[in-house]
Amino acid sequence: MEFMVSIEIRTPADLDPERLAALQAAETVRARELVEQGTLRRIWRIPGRRANISLYEAPDATALHAALSSLPLFPFMDIGVQALAVHPVEQQPAEVAAAS
Amino acid sequence: MEFMVSIEIRTPADLDPERLAALQAAETVRARELVEQGTLRRIWRIPGRRANISLYEAPDATALHAALSSLPLFPFMDIGVQALAVHPVEQQPAEVAAAS
Amino acid sequence: MEFMVSIEIRTPADLDPERLAALQAAETVRARELVEQGTLRRIWRIPGRRANISLYEAPDATALHAALSSLPLFPFMDIGVQALAVHPVEQQPAEVAAAS
Amino acid sequence: MEFMVSIEIRTPADLDPERLAALQAAETVRARELVEQGTLRRIWRIPGRRANISLYEAPDATALHAALSSLPLFPFMDIGVQALAVHPVEQQPAEVAAAS
Amino acid sequence: MEFMVSIEIRTPADLDPERLAALQAAETVRARELVEQGTLRRIWRIPGRRANISLYEAPDATALHAALSSLPLFPFMDIGVQALAVHPVEQQPAEVAAAS
Amino acid sequence: MEFMVSIEIRTPADLDPERLAALQAAETVRARELVEQGTLRRIWRIPGRRANISLYEAPDATALHAALSSLPLFPFMDIGVQALAVHPVEQQPAEVAAAS
Amino acid sequence: MEFMVSIEIRTPADLDPERLAALQAAETVRARELVEQGTLRRIWRIPGRRANISLYEAPDATALHAALSSLPLFPFMDIGVQALAVHPVEQQPAEVAAAS
Amino acid sequence: MEFMVSIEIRTPADLDPERLAALQAAETVRARELVEQGTLRRIWRIPGRRANISLYEAPDATALHAALSSLPLFPFMDIGVQALAVHPVEQQPAEVAAAS
Amino acid sequence: MEFMVSIEIRTPADLDPERLAALQAAETVRARELVEQGTLRRIWRIPGRRANISLYEAPDATALHAALSSLPLFPFMDIGVQALAVHPVEQQPAEVAAAS
Amino acid sequence: MEFMVSIEIRTPADLDPERLAALQAAETVRARELVEQGTLRRIWRIPGRRANISLYEAPDATALHAALSSLPLFPFMDIGVQALAVHPVEQQPAEVAAAS
Repeated sequence: MEFMVSIEIRTPADLDPERLAALQAAETVRARELVEQGTLRRIWRIPGRRANISLYEAPDATALHAALSSLPLFPFMDIGVQALAVHPVEQQPAEVAAAS
Repeated sequence: MEFMVSIEIRTPADLDPERLAALQAAETVRARELVEQGTLRRIWRIPGRRANISLYEAPDATALHAALSSLPLFPFMDIGVQALAVHPVEQQPAEVAAAS
Repeated sequence: MEFMVSIEIRTPADLDPERLAALQAAETVRARELVEQGTLRRIWRIPGRRANISLYEAPDATALHAALSSLPLFPFMDIGVQALAVHPVEQQPAEVAAAS
Repeated sequence: MEFMVSIEIRTPADLDPERLAALQAAETVRARELVEQGTLRRIWRIPGRRANISLYEAPDATALHAALSSLPLFPFMDIGVQALAVHPVEQQPAEVAAAS
Repeated sequence: MEFMVSIEIRTPADLDPERLAALQAAETVRARELVEQGTLRRIWRIPGRRANISLYEAPDATALHAALSSLPLFPFMDIGVQALAVHPVEQQPAEVAAAS
Repeated sequence: MEFMVSIEIRTPADLDPERLAALQAAETVRARELVEQGTLRRIWRIPGRRANISLYEAPDATALHAALSSLPLFPFMDIGVQALAVHPVEQQPAEVAAAS
Repeated sequence: MEFMVSIEIRTPADLDPERLAALQAAETVRARELVEQGTLRRIWRIPGRRANISLYEAPDATALHAALSSLPLFPFMDIGVQALAVHPVEQQPAEVAAAS
Repeated sequence: MEFMVSIEIRTPADLDPERLAALQAAETVRARELVEQGTLRRIWRIPGRRANISLYEAPDATALHAALSSLPLFPFMDIGVQALAVHPVEQQPAEVAAAS
Repeated sequence: MEFMVSIEIRTPADLDPERLAALQAAETVRARELVEQGTLRRIWRIPGRRANISLYEAPDATALHAALSSLPLFPFMDIGVQALAVHPVEQQPAEVAAAS
Repeated sequence: MEFMVSIEIRTPADLDPERLAALQAAETVRARELVEQGTLRRIWRIPGRRANISLYEAPDATALHAALSSLPLFPFMDIGVQALAVHPVEQQPAEVAAAS
């Protein structure tokens, strides 16, 4: 099942710059692991913001939460999740007939 | 997987009263079928409104959409869906240990 | 009477980690007591957030407030409460006849 | 238990004026019955709007919904309900001691 | 003239606990004085929140502001005020005739 | 007592043009009467909208509602009212001393 | 040209009380200068809030910004500006004819 | 003085297609006249919407309203206006010195 | 360049069912053409709603508008567009070095 | 491609005044460079706010993000971006014919 995930990153202004740099490096490593596992399928940056939209694949919302909360910057993220259903345009013809 | 579903019903003011009564009767029949299937687990009325909050169980968002769109009043519904994750308070002790 | 309760947890970024861990452990203990008393009937996590939706049973809003404010993390919670009415789909047939 | 109820009345622009007048007369009759029963304790008009704020007393949200949906203009109302808890300033001293 | 007043209390997380306790005790004393003067006619707690809805009686908005800003917790309050008009259901029959 | 009043006018698209013109002419006449009575003290147009902001003087919210609902276009208005308190900058020096 | 200006004042909770008192005194002095210049034509307090609505007269938005940013509390203000057009009810008859 | 103007066009679904086409043709003619007069300086389409953002130059909000309400589709427009001040980056060096 | 596009479909309640069916069939045909052109890269259904989220690839916002307005149901769509930037997690290592 | 960019600047209240002044000077220098490159085409101040609306020209959203994040005050900015399509009123006649 796919989920569209919107993430704003709000690190506090007084966060130690070295700790922030370390967190960001760890964040990129963990994000790439999620890409390799097939959990994080796409990620786009919102221009002008410390924010992104991501497409996740997870068995259910509990597994999605586990993936999101494994991100090193998770404590500083404001996250919105939209569960996605398959759209008929992407369904195979046989599926469309069955669903209609 | 569970979903919390918020539904507002907005039938047009000029809907034929007999057709509305027939739709409402069919709606109750279909809702009870979803209860018996284990898809619709709880339903509460929002006091003062033609609205409800419902707890659905479905394999994924595609199956949830199929259940919701099978309701006779679906064309007149404004629906919001919140995917739900398991909360640690409801997990078995072994699960909590595994997730922490 | 049932209430749907939405809770966001906003502990300050500079909260002492040991105090936070102690608060979270006490929170779980108190939540399980409320479950055993029949006050907290269900609880779900909002994926991606430090937030939950809970179903409470309480005689009235005053008793509900007492239950919520007994939670150790209450000072850090942003809480919304929705009073719930019985929905006809869950009523017994005799009740439906009486209410219609 | 008390509830604060916000009501906006939105009768359609093309409603027959005689039917509207009859509905409004019946609304006043029913509102006064609710006052006499002790269900509708106070009602105020929002200046400039076809709207009011009302204070209801009802055993629970199901009984409140029954009272609200008994109003002749109910099909044209947009209603919001806020469940109210007792405030310590209005409690008897003994209650305050017990609750603190 | 009556006003419906919504108050959220937002004391900072690092407020000295003794000062907070002193402010809350002084708040209750002042609130009871306003009750005795007939200025604060009713007060309800919003369940789950450090918030209340109150019914004030004051000659005008300037006098209302003086009453609200006399509360010891006023610097920590986020306040909304709704001016209230008399509703015909509460008017005497003679008034209704004159107003219609 | 003064009130700031925001008015949006929403006449239906299918309103008979002659009736609309008659309503608008009557609206101007009634507005000028309110100006002459000292009830409507200022009125500004919101550029680009069929909307205005107005400054009313009325003894209380009940009298304000009577003035607003006397406007011929009242059934088509969406109105917001803000009760206004005197600001110290406009008070006489003696008043400031008394209020501080 | 006139502008309706809404101002919320949000001084930080930990601002030095003496500095705050000095800022407020300087604010009143500057506001009265703007009144004398004809720039600040009216000012009302929002009851219950550290907020006001003001009516400014300025040649354009650049001059308005210069006036607002000359206020000593400007760094702590959250300001909204609404440009105002002349309303036909306040126009001279000749202007109304020309504009229609 | 410049204004940023946001326009949504909401023609009713049952508007006669010929009348709509005539209105749109007249709209383009009038918009080009405003361009030639120097009143409408730029106009952009919001992708995916029947909406635009426009940059207007007008002596004041009253003249701006006259320009906007001269558009043939004005009765079907939902318009928002933002008054604009000169930004220091666009000021001449001498102006910056004078304004600082 | 990629765009995330949110679409709500709001066909009027009184639309002729045959015309609606024809529009929906044409919509699917056109959507599949956009898929084949590489313009519409992904499309998901929002569960419970007549709504979707889509990922488009277009040279710029003008080309995106042309694609969206070529959809047969476009007159009944409420569309929001979010321009997307490349996220470093999806960049090639050389690009990341160049951008940092 | 053009983008309309809305920027609010929120420097923390306790930012060192010298560092703030240095950042603002560097901001002006960088903004003028973007003007000279043709990236920042117009910039307007929102009166009463530390905010601006800007018109950017960039090949795509990735390049726009690079330009915005090159601004020295970027860490303190809350930025919204609206992708802009060409409006027919600004198209050449040949383009209009091709697009219709």
